[in-house]
Amino acid sequence: MPGELVKDSVIIKDQTEASQIYNKGYYGYPMSGGGLEMDLLEAVYLVECGRLEVRSGDEVISMERMVASASAAHRDFEIKYIVYRDLRGRGYLVKPAGEEFDFRVFPRGGNPNSAQTKSWVSAISERSVFAIAPFMEVMDRSERTRKELLIAIVDEEGDITFYHADRSEPKGTALREWTGPPVRAALLEDRVMVFDEVGAQRLYDHGFYGKKLGKALQLSLIEAAHLMENGRLEVYTIISGRGVKLDRFKKRALKFQQDFDLRLKAYDDLRSRGLVVKTGFKYGSHFRVYEDDPERSHARWLVHAVPADYETTWPEISRAVRLAHGVKKEILFARVTDDRTEYMRLSRVRP
Amino acid sequence: MPGELVKDSVIIKDQTEASQIYNKGYYGYPMSGGGLEMDLLEAVYLVECGRLEVRSGDEVISMERMVASASAAHRDFEIKYIVYRDLRGRGYLVKPAGEEFDFRVFPRGGNPNSAQTKSWVSAISERSVFAIAPFMEVMDRSERTRKELLIAIVDEEGDITFYHADRSEPKGTALREWTGPPVRAALLEDRVMVFDEVGAQRLYDHGFYGKKLGKALQLSLIEAAHLMENGRLEVYTIISGRGVKLDRFKKRALKFQQDFDLRLKAYDDLRSRGLVVKTGFKYGSHFRVYEDDPERSHARWLVHAVPADYETTWPEISRAVRLAHGVKKEILFARVTDDRTEYMRLSRVRP
Repeated sequence: MPGELVKDSVIIKDQTEASQIYNKGYYGYPMSGGGLEMDLLEAVYLVECGRLEVRSGDEVISMERMVASASAAHRDFEIKYIVYRDLRGRGYLVKPAGEEFDFRVFPRGGNPNSAQTKSWVSAISERSVFAIAPFMEVMDRSERTRKELLIAIVDEEGDITFYHADRSEPKGTALREWTGPPVRAALLEDRVMVFDEVGAQRLYDHGFYGKKLGKALQLSLIEAAHLMENGRLEVYTIISGRGVKLDRFKKRALKFQQDFDLRLKAYDDLRSRGLVVKTGFKYGSHFRVYEDDPERSHARWLVHAVPADYETTWPEISRAVRLAHGVKKEILFARVTDDRTEYMRLSRVRP
Repeated sequence: MPGELVKDSVIIKDQTEASQIYNKGYYGYPMSGGGLEMDLLEAVYLVECGRLEVRSGDEVISMERMVASASAAHRDFEIKYIVYRDLRGRGYLVKPAGEEFDFRVFPRGGNPNSAQTKSWVSAISERSVFAIAPFMEVMDRSERTRKELLIAIVDEEGDITFYHADRSEPKGTALREWTGPPVRAALLEDRVMVFDEVGAQRLYDHGFYGKKLGKALQLSLIEAAHLMENGRLEVYTIISGRGVKLDRFKKRALKFQQDFDLRLKAYDDLRSRGLVVKTGFKYGSHFRVYEDDPERSHARWLVHAVPADYETTWPEISRAVRLAHGVKKEILFARVTDDRTEYMRLSRVRP
């Protein structure tokens, strides 16, 4: 099947041949005057499959020269190509798309004439930056148009990992009404202890706060700050016995944990959703989150609190998702903005 | 059993009672003139267990006041105490130690009169900094004296994770002698392609370099740099066809990967040990490492390349270890110094 390289496109002039290529896989774009025009991406794939020969004048163009032209014309050509050929190779109908994402993928057996786009796919290098704000914008746009958003990350060896991204609204059933006076607790170096057994039990009963240490109850700094905000706890220093106000308590906590404010905001929001929130240290994340009593069920989520303008590398994101999957939990990124906390869920998928 | 609080110690004067406490658990230090002196740490534990009552004059001292005194006297008292009571609670004989580490632990059933110390234990907060240089010094000292080094990390809720740390000398069997001219390869955006099928096969046969993409072979930047260093590869740019020297190639790679030099040094060292090294992206680490043909066995190690003065937080370390364990691999930290690369192995253990 002969095509001709014209600038950044390959043109098939012969109408019979053009129809054959288009009808079996919907490659290229039918031209108004007959014939078919196609992207270098599609053309390279057809050359690799042996379905197309590309010429420039009389000369047959090698795969290598095709790749050279495509690389000159498109930034990150090889990244896009690796993902395109993977999806095509699995029998999906894939069409190059616009700016926001790279490919539209049709449902299995579907084509541009019979079906709506099922997924938007972004093909990106593992070396790319992940920036949560623009990422969530694309995510929202895909949700509004009912497409699933898939991110195909290509590693340095050309292996692809696919992620599905969407919003999540986690909810739990552990909201408990609090009556009576606040419980008194002693501030130690980087944690808080309740020595009063009755108070310790009340805190535990009202939302599973803290952890028993003998007869005493240990609270983390974040639990203590949350309970102080809600009038359930009064803290004094263990050595001098002086009361510690919330402001000073938070300042102290900031010394131990630079992102204490950020984490506290996410913690408060998760608690307001009736969830029980515990440290995620063992899982390498900020929080593990339960729908109710942590002694009676496993944590369903791992939650990572991030600022509104969070940026990181994809290997970092990959790590977080893999950790959560390894322990059969969902990973949520809690994006803390000035007025609310929103949750992005990322999961590894095989399309 | 009555003891008296004297400054930072508790003294039991009565000889019968002193002997009883010392002989059942080896708490405290027998005094030359008779009686027993003990650390607040040991005393708080005995008070918690109901085996000791501490007085100051006629007044009985509460658990809370004991903790207050201990917190005033010892930085991070609660961290040390949480680990001490955990080990004692499991039946280990534990004695407070010196500066470099916190506790000496005897083998099960052993005591200071009958056995050598089995482990050194450092009890530290998850908020502590992990600094590889001093850490490896302590590790080497423990190896020289044939003690195992255990790190007990206490999270913000008081849960403990134990890590065992030692050196590792990974070895593989994939060293292959290379003869003949270098293979030619084309530099694309952030990878290198070998279009020459014979060359591609030679590279793959001599150490399993690269990954097939159709008939071509993709090499990562790090594989390509390593092969160039060893005279096995010549690289030209795909667009202009001009040769690229190693120096310029490395400079270009640095733009994509800030720590390219560091990773390349670790890569070179691993290769020189006969190992096959592939990207660890999917596992959230730098490399996955095989003893031989990656198609015939699983990767045994995940390796993270770090500079000689590497510092990070313990949650970061925890994450790396958990990731490796989740996929049944060992995690090695490859510490790259000016003249060599050395390997630290960390594993999670239950003492």
